[in-house]
Amino acid sequence: MIYLDNAATTFPKPLSVIQAVDRSMRMLGANPGRSGHAMSIAAAEEIYRTRVEAAEFFGAPGPECVAFTLNCTEAINFVLKGLLKPGDHVVTSNLEHNAVMRPLQALAERKITYAQAEVVLGDNDATVDNFRKALQPNTALIICMHASNVWGIRLPVERIAALAHQYEIPMCVDCAQSAGVLPISMTDGFDYLCVASHKGLYAPMGTGLLLTTRGTQLKTIIEGGTGTMSASLVQPDTMPDRLESGTPNVAGISGIRAGLAFVRSKGIDRVRTHELELLRQLYRRLQSLEGVKLYTPEPQDPWFAPVLSFNIGAMESETVGEKLAKQGVAVRAGIHCSKSAHQAMGTLDQGAVRVCPSVFTRRSDIIAAGDAVEKIMKKRI
Amino acid sequence: MIYLDNAATTFPKPLSVIQAVDRSMRMLGANPGRSGHAMSIAAAEEIYRTRVEAAEFFGAPGPECVAFTLNCTEAINFVLKGLLKPGDHVVTSNLEHNAVMRPLQALAERKITYAQAEVVLGDNDATVDNFRKALQPNTALIICMHASNVWGIRLPVERIAALAHQYEIPMCVDCAQSAGVLPISMTDGFDYLCVASHKGLYAPMGTGLLLTTRGTQLKTIIEGGTGTMSASLVQPDTMPDRLESGTPNVAGISGIRAGLAFVRSKGIDRVRTHELELLRQLYRRLQSLEGVKLYTPEPQDPWFAPVLSFNIGAMESETVGEKLAKQGVAVRAGIHCSKSAHQAMGTLDQGAVRVCPSVFTRRSDIIAAGDAVEKIMKKRI
Repeated sequence: MIYLDNAATTFPKPLSVIQAVDRSMRMLGANPGRSGHAMSIAAAEEIYRTRVEAAEFFGAPGPECVAFTLNCTEAINFVLKGLLKPGDHVVTSNLEHNAVMRPLQALAERKITYAQAEVVLGDNDATVDNFRKALQPNTALIICMHASNVWGIRLPVERIAALAHQYEIPMCVDCAQSAGVLPISMTDGFDYLCVASHKGLYAPMGTGLLLTTRGTQLKTIIEGGTGTMSASLVQPDTMPDRLESGTPNVAGISGIRAGLAFVRSKGIDRVRTHELELLRQLYRRLQSLEGVKLYTPEPQDPWFAPVLSFNIGAMESETVGEKLAKQGVAVRAGIHCSKSAHQAMGTLDQGAVRVCPSVFTRRSDIIAAGDAVEKIMKKRI
Repeated sequence: MIYLDNAATTFPKPLSVIQAVDRSMRMLGANPGRSGHAMSIAAAEEIYRTRVEAAEFFGAPGPECVAFTLNCTEAINFVLKGLLKPGDHVVTSNLEHNAVMRPLQALAERKITYAQAEVVLGDNDATVDNFRKALQPNTALIICMHASNVWGIRLPVERIAALAHQYEIPMCVDCAQSAGVLPISMTDGFDYLCVASHKGLYAPMGTGLLLTTRGTQLKTIIEGGTGTMSASLVQPDTMPDRLESGTPNVAGISGIRAGLAFVRSKGIDRVRTHELELLRQLYRRLQSLEGVKLYTPEPQDPWFAPVLSFNIGAMESETVGEKLAKQGVAVRAGIHCSKSAHQAMGTLDQGAVRVCPSVFTRRSDIIAAGDAVEKIMKKRI
């Protein structure tokens, strides 16, 4: 199998990650922070070290700024539900994933409204200006993705954060598609970073991160045992326990730690350069095939994360996905949990075929994927 | 190490569980339900089979009744926040864990009130009567634990469910401490079962289950991409996707599947009998040591789950825990995230030393634990 569905989750995971999970299951199998015996303390230390390393990776002031979640979606919900009050307004982009859009839609019931600013590819001034124009006196949050999970289009999040702070509005970035591939640092004025660690950080599925310096101010949507202040019925207001109720995914967190080390050892810039190069190779091949619809210019720094979507004529994207799968090429087709992004590009009916390489993808994989597309176009499959 | 902290999480995990997680990371590493390629489908099938097997295990009508969560705490929050409206009243017990009490406390802000019915050990009539007396015209939910995580005391949940249904009130059981050890079946009138699968089901930490036939009626507190109805900004009202947003913990779910198979192969009744026998052995040893405080009668069917807590004179329970840890005996001491249970027994200041065996615990472990307690009492450590 040629796996090019790394935007859904990276595969394979590095051996070091698989081994870290296995070791954690065998050696760190006690509940951390609950008991005082050696294995419980060792599990707690593993989690603490992972917090320290995640904080360093994302430029957060310290380990107390890192909360572990089930996934990036949960992290985003913690921010939106924890921060917004009836009457508040939110500004987001026109490319957002359902992880942002569905909670915003649900919050409409609590009289929270939102506006979607249009992202103008290749013109960050215009994009930032659209965000500015969308602001209202009651705007209480700007939340946007770092890069589109469908089109790879990168948002100028540092400039949007500067805008947010100019108006004293907190700023949250959905880094689902970018963490480990695009550099980002809390020091650039981000109040909340939501991370899907099972993608570009190569951790197991079922792990996510919320990085924030403002966690103590978030209202909680989930409360429970934290192993701290057990005699109090009130959820602790200290971080990170405020946002981490119940038993954590210790083995998954060990996987995050190994994944962070893996990405550090490769270097974010090298990973991105490698993946963008492979995507450009594919882009040119697809461009040479008459009838392939490409929706963006060639993916390159600093405008793109390494994600590319296309279609073949009017063929349903799912059909193309199936025909690729039959040839052993694994991609995702359809709507990609992202109505907005498809509306923006006019592909809501057809969907799109999405390709995303990882650090493990080789040039020969891309050649084979191109061959497979060509075979579909020549109706040989 | 002699690990007797199985009430926090079971350790070791069965080899089959460790291998299932490892295999899942290597073989089922694609995002389930998102793509149409073989590995994504295989991951989705693994999750579906786990749902089927979990539904069977808990007597639920079908796989659509099973939602996977980060932990039991999250499952409880989904029920409480999803069901209760301002003005509602909840009846719970006086032994509950913070996983129930802290969300209830947080819901006070939304004008949701609760009453705690006293559990009378050895007199189920009196217990059920206390639940009945606590009911109000606006009681919208009865939620209680199946067994106390501190005292092992078992609640007559089937009779409480019958009471609930007599008054047409939904009934939720916190099975954190009981699943895999005490039999329970949805067919006995439970509307919601919340499960910590990393305890008696021997799955990895970071996994939980919500079993319900009423999931479609729960308001969501977390929304996001589900891989279904992607073109809709509204969270699907179909189960289980309604309650499962974002990428799931596939490897953890594989661990649940292996854990369920493990428990089935042993048999719940055999597991419980084994563990209760070991606890009685410890109970008698502790009883023979002057100065050990025991708070309940000898743990036996049908009154107890296999959890036993004690103290040594007026010594702080944490001190006892540390002295046991020094001798290689791993237990939990302190308040156990359960203020209510300690208030009920008058141990809120001292806490208690908790012992919980697993299927892997041997008689020699219990003898060694007894020896270690005796050593502390004789001030040899």
